[in-house]
Amino acid sequence: MYKIAAVQLSPVFLSVEASLKKAGMMCESLDADLIVFPELVTSGYAFSNKDDVAAVAEPFPNGKSFRYMRDLSARHNASVVYGFPESDGDKYYNSAALVNPDGSHYLYRKTHLFYREKLFFSPGDTGLIVCPAKNKVPVGLMICFDWQFPEAARVLALNGAEIICHPSNLVLPWCQQAMLTRSLENRVFSITANRIGTEVIGSTSINFTGQSQITSPLGEIIQRLSPNLEEIAVAEINPEAARDKTVTEMNNLFGDRRPAFYTDILNPRQRQT
Amino acid sequence: MYKIAAVQLSPVFLSVEASLKKAGMMCESLDADLIVFPELVTSGYAFSNKDDVAAVAEPFPNGKSFRYMRDLSARHNASVVYGFPESDGDKYYNSAALVNPDGSHYLYRKTHLFYREKLFFSPGDTGLIVCPAKNKVPVGLMICFDWQFPEAARVLALNGAEIICHPSNLVLPWCQQAMLTRSLENRVFSITANRIGTEVIGSTSINFTGQSQITSPLGEIIQRLSPNLEEIAVAEINPEAARDKTVTEMNNLFGDRRPAFYTDILNPRQRQT
Repeated sequence: MYKIAAVQLSPVFLSVEASLKKAGMMCESLDADLIVFPELVTSGYAFSNKDDVAAVAEPFPNGKSFRYMRDLSARHNASVVYGFPESDGDKYYNSAALVNPDGSHYLYRKTHLFYREKLFFSPGDTGLIVCPAKNKVPVGLMICFDWQFPEAARVLALNGAEIICHPSNLVLPWCQQAMLTRSLENRVFSITANRIGTEVIGSTSINFTGQSQITSPLGEIIQRLSPNLEEIAVAEINPEAARDKTVTEMNNLFGDRRPAFYTDILNPRQRQT
Repeated sequence: MYKIAAVQLSPVFLSVEASLKKAGMMCESLDADLIVFPELVTSGYAFSNKDDVAAVAEPFPNGKSFRYMRDLSARHNASVVYGFPESDGDKYYNSAALVNPDGSHYLYRKTHLFYREKLFFSPGDTGLIVCPAKNKVPVGLMICFDWQFPEAARVLALNGAEIICHPSNLVLPWCQQAMLTRSLENRVFSITANRIGTEVIGSTSINFTGQSQITSPLGEIIQRLSPNLEEIAVAEINPEAARDKTVTEMNNLFGDRRPAFYTDILNPRQRQT
């Protein structure tokens, strides 16, 4: 069995050190093989301008967040996924990293940016990646608003992801339910690690929805957390269950796909505006 | 406003005449612009062999089902979508047709066949099509198990469908909930016209799940019927609401898509078996 966890918390806005400390303390006694933290867990979310981002963004894998998470990974003997603002030259990305106990690490840059993120971050250029976590379990990385695009989870599953790790800072009401469909339509596990709390930009409050969850390949909720508490969802799963794409004895979820009829997904003939 | 309806019933197995009569009588006093009947509404579902199919299959548009539905369409001044077993030379398809009050008509052959359908029917070769219903409202056609593949509804929406018409004979427990995600992820209306009742093949009972439903572009249930009664779901909608793909003032559902990163949907690098 493989023990997976979603850590739900509210980071300390604009303080990497305090946010990391909080994240680390929360899972001090956590025994798991794979731990997923929220999007931008090292910094908080509600940046007013690019200077805010610059103050907390870090290169990868040379930042203190990476070192902290690498040490946490080694100490817990667990793969760790976490979101952070990444700097690369004069660009910033809303990124997530997978770090393994042996120090191997992988970087994903958010493909679909949400709302004001477009003011600060460049759209991701890594594509949707699947990488080996502890025990070589193939995990796919996507971040928050990527959920809205069925193509994201689909690409991850087609490339062998057994677990989708989904660091999030959700503000819209739909994702948690939609992730049941993402799991079901791809027969994969998913771990949505969402944050809680409120942040403010100017006169606008941003409320994060919590309800971090772990779902099964049949689209069941294995664990779902509260909307407003700092807590951890833990589940023991068999990742290999996600290899079984059998729907009926005559239907295989991937074998039954008919890509010849899906070409408009890459080249839409007509676009609504 | 545009009045849409899903007619939920149990056809008379292997009797086209009795099934059509039942379908017609059920909506005798129905006032609607678009009426959707279930998959294989002219024949029932539980064919034992190809001879069963041959006994009820019809060419399109030269069969009596087409003529019946064309008349029904004209009489009600409503577009009609219905499922039927289609014969074309020595092949059979699980098909759905759209017939308009002016006699114009369109044919869709089910892309993703479910279970024993593969014994009788050829996989659809029309692709997923969008066609003009009454008042030129663009509707997309998909049938039952097509719901499982996010690509199907996606292609329809990208090609301008404002309403997905979804004749069904559902037996698995997941579709109705998943269609909320299909609506939401594409910001379209959907009409799932499902059948009810039980049919038997050998010693196996097939139970159809009813709960026909109409959903909104925000993934809400506008109407959902019972699991076991013959009844009709009706809703008045504004189809143009589906043209609005705005998620936030900075996010457009289709404008934010990044097809360059979706290429594996057409050419998967690795396939689970």
